[in-house]
Amino acid sequence: MATVLDGSNATCEAANGLSKEKLASSKDLFLKVYEQLVRELLEDSKVYTFTEEARAWTKKMTDYTVPGGKLNRGLSVIDSLRLLKEGNLTDEEEFRACALGWCIEWLQGYFLVEDDIMDKSVTRRGQPCWYRVPQVGLIAINDGILLDSHIYRILKRHFKALPIYIDLVDLFHDVTYQTACGQQLDLITTPEGTVDLSKYTMSTYLKIVQYKTAYYSFYLPVACALYLAGEASPENLQIAEEILIAMGTYFQVQDDYLDCYGAPEVIGKIGTDIEDTKCSWLVVQALQRANDDQKRTIEEKYGRADPACVAEIKKLYAELKLEAAFQEYEQQSYDELTAAIRKVDSKRLQAVFLTFLGKVYKRQK
Amino acid sequence: MATVLDGSNATCEAANGLSKEKLASSKDLFLKVYEQLVRELLEDSKVYTFTEEARAWTKKMTDYTVPGGKLNRGLSVIDSLRLLKEGNLTDEEEFRACALGWCIEWLQGYFLVEDDIMDKSVTRRGQPCWYRVPQVGLIAINDGILLDSHIYRILKRHFKALPIYIDLVDLFHDVTYQTACGQQLDLITTPEGTVDLSKYTMSTYLKIVQYKTAYYSFYLPVACALYLAGEASPENLQIAEEILIAMGTYFQVQDDYLDCYGAPEVIGKIGTDIEDTKCSWLVVQALQRANDDQKRTIEEKYGRADPACVAEIKKLYAELKLEAAFQEYEQQSYDELTAAIRKVDSKRLQAVFLTFLGKVYKRQK
Repeated sequence: MATVLDGSNATCEAANGLSKEKLASSKDLFLKVYEQLVRELLEDSKVYTFTEEARAWTKKMTDYTVPGGKLNRGLSVIDSLRLLKEGNLTDEEEFRACALGWCIEWLQGYFLVEDDIMDKSVTRRGQPCWYRVPQVGLIAINDGILLDSHIYRILKRHFKALPIYIDLVDLFHDVTYQTACGQQLDLITTPEGTVDLSKYTMSTYLKIVQYKTAYYSFYLPVACALYLAGEASPENLQIAEEILIAMGTYFQVQDDYLDCYGAPEVIGKIGTDIEDTKCSWLVVQALQRANDDQKRTIEEKYGRADPACVAEIKKLYAELKLEAAFQEYEQQSYDELTAAIRKVDSKRLQAVFLTFLGKVYKRQK
Repeated sequence: MATVLDGSNATCEAANGLSKEKLASSKDLFLKVYEQLVRELLEDSKVYTFTEEARAWTKKMTDYTVPGGKLNRGLSVIDSLRLLKEGNLTDEEEFRACALGWCIEWLQGYFLVEDDIMDKSVTRRGQPCWYRVPQVGLIAINDGILLDSHIYRILKRHFKALPIYIDLVDLFHDVTYQTACGQQLDLITTPEGTVDLSKYTMSTYLKIVQYKTAYYSFYLPVACALYLAGEASPENLQIAEEILIAMGTYFQVQDDYLDCYGAPEVIGKIGTDIEDTKCSWLVVQALQRANDDQKRTIEEKYGRADPACVAEIKKLYAELKLEAAFQEYEQQSYDELTAAIRKVDSKRLQAVFLTFLGKVYKRQK
């Protein structure tokens, strides 16, 4: 990991500037802001006449679907803003960073609620998916729509008076659209039942990963911080997009790699991408490298629950040297990212990118 | 119907100013604008790198879910704007009115796609619901999300340069939120399986109707026209909201009445609100008027497919004189609406409201 901080002692110090205590207090503050935002939503004049039952439903639904994750995306806004402003944040700026961070978490909640229904998932964040909770069922579809609406209620209440209001609204629209487009490509590339491996190309894989995950998980938090810092010039936004989409892509490739090669006791789950016919980086690589015989093996054995089939696929991955291919990809991706980050003029912005890189590079889980 | 136009000859002429030819040409123009908007969405730079398959899916999905209805809501924008501007519209103003009209139709498409999944509906606009089309299934959930995103792509492309841009975005957010809140109240008041008639109060009924339908169907088109005409003062918006939400409420009560008492050959369907345990104005009225015995009859017979049960409910409605109650409500609602409209300063705005009233009052289908 030390190599991440090569190249610039200034960025090194800035990236280390967030002590553990600071991070813990970020999280406390962040969670406090959540309570305020929910309270405001439940007293919102747009629906203030509603029944007690509707209000209780919304409270339960929001608590169940929004704050239960690791909150990395949401916390990134305040962490990035601190780096951009070298720690000098007013209470108001801290609050705004938390509110925008929560908008990202709300957006993720929205997508997870809807995706879990589409994917027929069973559990999420260690509990039943929201739509599987008794009495909820497909009402969850409308609950997701409400979560999406909440984002714009929060933005309107807390940002309407600022000149960046319309930029923030546009940003959340753009990223929502990109995420839904990525989800669409994923859904039509890997539909239930009939699988067509000829669609599993690297080009499609990259589009799915970038649109479905990287925009909202990597680009969005930093774009929010740039707007709050008053540094959202077109140039800065473009640099952030290039670097963070590349980083988000690397992150997802790593995720696919760990699903097969990670230690279950470390990653906290037993990977099932092979059984689930996932359009994983590994199978896309395998299809690129395979001869006709090997392709037939993939056609016949990929996407089957039978452990013997899974073993055959893993044997084929070994023959095709996919572990080495991943190491090579990882090194190349790392070199390109650090080179791109070094070119960034602002040391403070470099620190933002290096902090992200430090969190994802060579992670084991 | 003649009485609708009492009170002001000026508004009478203005309301009649849209000849049949004009209305037909509105629709032609409106449909042409649809083709342009879809073309622009499919070439959108936000997703320009997408696969041919994804683009074909979006085209098919949009054509299937957006333009197939009566288009009343969408066409109301241009009709209202013509009345507000006494016919003097530039080509650009006509285009913008059509584009906003389509945003309303897109919003309706979004809600219908998602509602049909939640309600397990079978057909919509004379064809299978989108989620029932082969290969679609629950992917329809994400398709709805895309439709919602399209609204803001259209607004950004065609309105971003105008000072009303942020108002329009806020307006669509507000109405989306109100509609989803109405849908929530409907879903939790009348869940599948367990029905609790004690929840079928007039207060809840009115909130469902107003939030789920009236805001987007009645208020939204006129609010759009007011913005385009440069007449969206807080006073005008508030008057429009009051009058059009009342009119939308009346419209839905009428819908519930016609479901039971309308001629099937005229309304084009056989009503099944009683069988479907709907929270209809009629059953809410019946519950208000019923003695304990009659309440027991409702508890036992409402929401059953058995024609004998349906007949018993209809008999009870007759005993409780619900037809007369409706006529009384209709007259009172009409009197209140015309009184409110008469108080509006602008004759042009009066004409907008009277045109709406003319379309809904004492309709037979």
